[in-house]
Amino acid sequence: MTWPGTGTAAPVLLPAEELPLGEEVDCGSHTVTEEEIVAFASAWDPQYFHVSADLAAHSDFGGLIASGLHTASIYQKLAVAGLLHRFDVVAGREIRSLRFLRPVRPGDVLSCGILVRSVEPAAPGRSLVVIAGVLRNQHGKPVLELEVDSLMRSRQLPLTRTRGRWPAGRAPGPR
Amino acid sequence: MTWPGTGTAAPVLLPAEELPLGEEVDCGSHTVTEEEIVAFASAWDPQYFHVSADLAAHSDFGGLIASGLHTASIYQKLAVAGLLHRFDVVAGREIRSLRFLRPVRPGDVLSCGILVRSVEPAAPGRSLVVIAGVLRNQHGKPVLELEVDSLMRSRQLPLTRTRGRWPAGRAPGPR
Repeated sequence: MTWPGTGTAAPVLLPAEELPLGEEVDCGSHTVTEEEIVAFASAWDPQYFHVSADLAAHSDFGGLIASGLHTASIYQKLAVAGLLHRFDVVAGREIRSLRFLRPVRPGDVLSCGILVRSVEPAAPGRSLVVIAGVLRNQHGKPVLELEVDSLMRSRQLPLTRTRGRWPAGRAPGPR
Repeated sequence: MTWPGTGTAAPVLLPAEELPLGEEVDCGSHTVTEEEIVAFASAWDPQYFHVSADLAAHSDFGGLIASGLHTASIYQKLAVAGLLHRFDVVAGREIRSLRFLRPVRPGDVLSCGILVRSVEPAAPGRSLVVIAGVLRNQHGKPVLELEVDSLMRSRQLPLTRTRGRWPAGRAPGPR
């Protein structure tokens, strides 16, 4: 059995304490194509300025632009490959702000940076991790910024695998 | 030429003033499959609890759960089909809060509700629209909540198609 994203046998995933707190991590880049913009948006966000170059010529942007959720998904792909796949993530809990700062167009090359802002105890064996992320285009201009709260396993206490439980007092328990 | 999402000739898109301010709009439902969870996450969020049922058995949730961005994309698909495709949307500008409240699992049926909170002048011919959205599962429990700021064309003034411009003083102009 191989571990997703690594092609190797399941590794020991790192606890939240090993995150590179306070230093921006370069998570690589992704080239956006017209085909990818249209394919993503056709499935999930079929507004005319995302799915038809002809119709998009009549939009405010004068041409095809990527869905914001497509852009956010590019961020996540790079963030997982560049950093998160090595850590013992439990789940994302909230994207506190997701800002679409500039249009993303076919041919754009988006580079991803991640800054781990804080790691705080959240529950026994679990930490609340706050990450700020940015995607910049080939001109160095930010196109997307976001702040994410996630839960990760931590060293604090022996792990107790309480399925589906969120930290007490925050979110509802299992269905 | 047909209009995306409608299968008909390009219609006159409605201005922001026609939005159903303050009343929740039912935007239909979407059944989540294991295949869709794995396909979305394999492309955009390949963390083990999203892409491998076997490995996900070792996660806090005890099984496969959907990527948060997949869940957000299901929201957007339903929101576009149920309401937004009839309106003259310019672009999303910010998702101010995107909360993942419960895990989404294979077989879940997610229903989408939209509430237009406010419509305010943003620039000549443009309105800032604040929408609150929710996805609920087949048990009536919310799995995702979000608040989105978007720009739409409005009746305020004759449209001037200033390509790529955002409202003055908010976001940067064209690249």
